[in-house]
Amino acid sequence: VTGRPRLSLNQATVQNLSLDRAVDLCLRHEIPAIGLWRHRVAELGLARSAARVRSAGLHVSSLCRGGFFTHADPEARAAARADNLAAVAEAAELEADVLVLVSGGLVPGCRDLGLARRMVSDAVAELVPTAERAGVRLGVEALHPMFCADRCVVSRLGDALDLALPFPAPAVGIIIDTYHVWWDSQLAEQVARARGRIAGFQLADWVLPLPADFLLGRGHLGDGDIDLAWITAQVLAAGYGGYAEVEIFRQEVWDAPPDDTAATVRQRFEDLRYSLPSSSSR
Amino acid sequence: VTGRPRLSLNQATVQNLSLDRAVDLCLRHEIPAIGLWRHRVAELGLARSAARVRSAGLHVSSLCRGGFFTHADPEARAAARADNLAAVAEAAELEADVLVLVSGGLVPGCRDLGLARRMVSDAVAELVPTAERAGVRLGVEALHPMFCADRCVVSRLGDALDLALPFPAPAVGIIIDTYHVWWDSQLAEQVARARGRIAGFQLADWVLPLPADFLLGRGHLGDGDIDLAWITAQVLAAGYGGYAEVEIFRQEVWDAPPDDTAATVRQRFEDLRYSLPSSSSR
Repeated sequence: VTGRPRLSLNQATVQNLSLDRAVDLCLRHEIPAIGLWRHRVAELGLARSAARVRSAGLHVSSLCRGGFFTHADPEARAAARADNLAAVAEAAELEADVLVLVSGGLVPGCRDLGLARRMVSDAVAELVPTAERAGVRLGVEALHPMFCADRCVVSRLGDALDLALPFPAPAVGIIIDTYHVWWDSQLAEQVARARGRIAGFQLADWVLPLPADFLLGRGHLGDGDIDLAWITAQVLAAGYGGYAEVEIFRQEVWDAPPDDTAATVRQRFEDLRYSLPSSSSR
Repeated sequence: VTGRPRLSLNQATVQNLSLDRAVDLCLRHEIPAIGLWRHRVAELGLARSAARVRSAGLHVSSLCRGGFFTHADPEARAAARADNLAAVAEAAELEADVLVLVSGGLVPGCRDLGLARRMVSDAVAELVPTAERAGVRLGVEALHPMFCADRCVVSRLGDALDLALPFPAPAVGIIIDTYHVWWDSQLAEQVARARGRIAGFQLADWVLPLPADFLLGRGHLGDGDIDLAWITAQVLAAGYGGYAEVEIFRQEVWDAPPDDTAATVRQRFEDLRYSLPSSSSR
């Protein structure tokens, strides 16, 4: 791997578009890859979605998402298991580079973070053989600590890596999402430690003030506080050769004309200035 | 030190009360200590504030706060330095257990987290001799990573401890605030590592959904997702013998009658169930 990473558009960035129209948008803007969401795939149908991205010549950099493993109720746990098996099958059919896993928050009615984290670890272990048979790589994503209680008890890159490392690297990697991990004083060392395990790289900026729903605080690259060029350089220096996926949840981005959004995504990505690692440092 | 920690009321919990009235409230509810805020002290006057808490027999568990060191502009840096020197003098006069330091966020116009953190480290180093002469202990507080950009680049207990450790323990410790650090998978080991350095312990719960201003997401103990009993047990096991200060920023708490708030603070604190460390483990 050499040079700048190639761009991918996560389809959540153009929230209002169907899969068909998001694919068209990528083609019009010469964006070579797309990150898909399962509800949009289901809307068009799995087989038709796979055929559509394939015939368009688009690479699928990720499928979002599986996970949400932390249930006390056995039926809810069984449903989560079934849903994750389905997600693996979908990722295989779509030839996605990775199935993104968001762990789930605290177990309902229980404040024990350790219990929730063990439940996640067990669920990943249980999913791995299926993923391996399907040739699908799982990507454990750390979400910002502000989502710890209700969405994801995996809060730091190092925590995600601790979950991934017991399994073979082709089976389980991690997702690095700048919005979630930028603040971590140990980011550089954890990215370096993740060499060979980086299954996906997602970019968005941190834009203050955060909206009431702070899921939607993500902004276009350069509009916020994150040193995206520096993080990108760290990720490349750790040997990552995959796509850089821009994923922006933000109401005003969703309200903008999709062609404007795609043009801005491309331009801002090209504007990032960072040094590429020399081949010797790889 | 043995037994349960003694309760302190941080006066921010009764935001609408003057220092005088907050002191009266503590007396009515037999709360033996208070955490003071500088703007309320200034309102009454430093000497009168000190005389007031002393004659009431109240212990001052903390003074909030100094810090906000991260300025690019030399004049702003000089102003911060002067303000921190004043804060040390106030903490000395009030005989506060600790002067709480909140570091400040990113340097304006600069995304370099490392630079901001070095600036904080330098500023603490510069403040230490003054604090030592005044007999004041500085307490570096880690704030939740959601405040990293605009308020505090010290995001984890371990980061706060890294800042404190180069200095003598009586001069620089850390503040453990449950709202800010509860999510950290390394919390137990960092609390243990903080033995001898815990200069203050503040309690509030994490209540979802967070309000638009998520500074105000703190709630009464037991109303949210934090395992407060478990964290308290860790802090005690690390040898902490100071006060447990309840500090709640929340609009509906501020809108409640202060006597109701104080009664709830007391009751919820007494309701916490945790095992006390055996004397041998200390």
